[in-house]
Amino acid sequence: MPPNSIAPIVRIAELEVDPNQIAAYHALLSEEIEASIRIEPGVLFLYAISIKGSPEKIRVIEAYADRAAYDAHLTTPHFLKYKTHTESMVKSLRLFETDPIILRAKGRISSSPIT
Amino acid sequence: MPPNSIAPIVRIAELEVDPNQIAAYHALLSEEIEASIRIEPGVLFLYAISIKGSPEKIRVIEAYADRAAYDAHLTTPHFLKYKTHTESMVKSLRLFETDPIILRAKGRISSSPIT
Repeated sequence: MPPNSIAPIVRIAELEVDPNQIAAYHALLSEEIEASIRIEPGVLFLYAISIKGSPEKIRVIEAYADRAAYDAHLTTPHFLKYKTHTESMVKSLRLFETDPIILRAKGRISSSPIT
Repeated sequence: MPPNSIAPIVRIAELEVDPNQIAAYHALLSEEIEASIRIEPGVLFLYAISIKGSPEKIRVIEAYADRAAYDAHLTTPHFLKYKTHTESMVKSLRLFETDPIILRAKGRISSSPIT
């Protein structure tokens, strides 16, 4: 995409969490995601899943309106709480920056509370 | 989640495509995604990205309303066209089934045409 076009920032986080702390990790991650969507206008979506059969392998697919929205997200109290409280639970973290090819969702369906 | 709860099916496809055919692959994938979202009521979202700096490494994050919607998707003409026409472009494909932890999106923003 041309450097000046307005495209969302999409990132993928691949985490491995302590198998003994999965429920606690889910709770903190869910609280953080709920707050980000509710409070931050520039957070477009946050989808957290685990690989079937490997609940310790977490993926978070994140979309932000632009770089400023992403930078702002990193300074919010809810994100900082999540980072601090999950530090001892996260055994590894890989962050991938991406180039969106095509992003499509149906009407309002993906905004329904689905957990 | 309990077996009878209604939860969307989320899958992640990790592909590596022929570096010499990336533009053609993007065109076919985009056509398939546009058609799926427009025609199939059970396709909730389809997000295709490449890893920054590695345009041959593609990820598609897919969500379907339920198993029937996913099974139906695999038999649609637009999906079959995509599979047939990209067969020689795709060097490897790994499909991950997932367990959703929390899926949140903002209002209608993620349904805007953003490519």
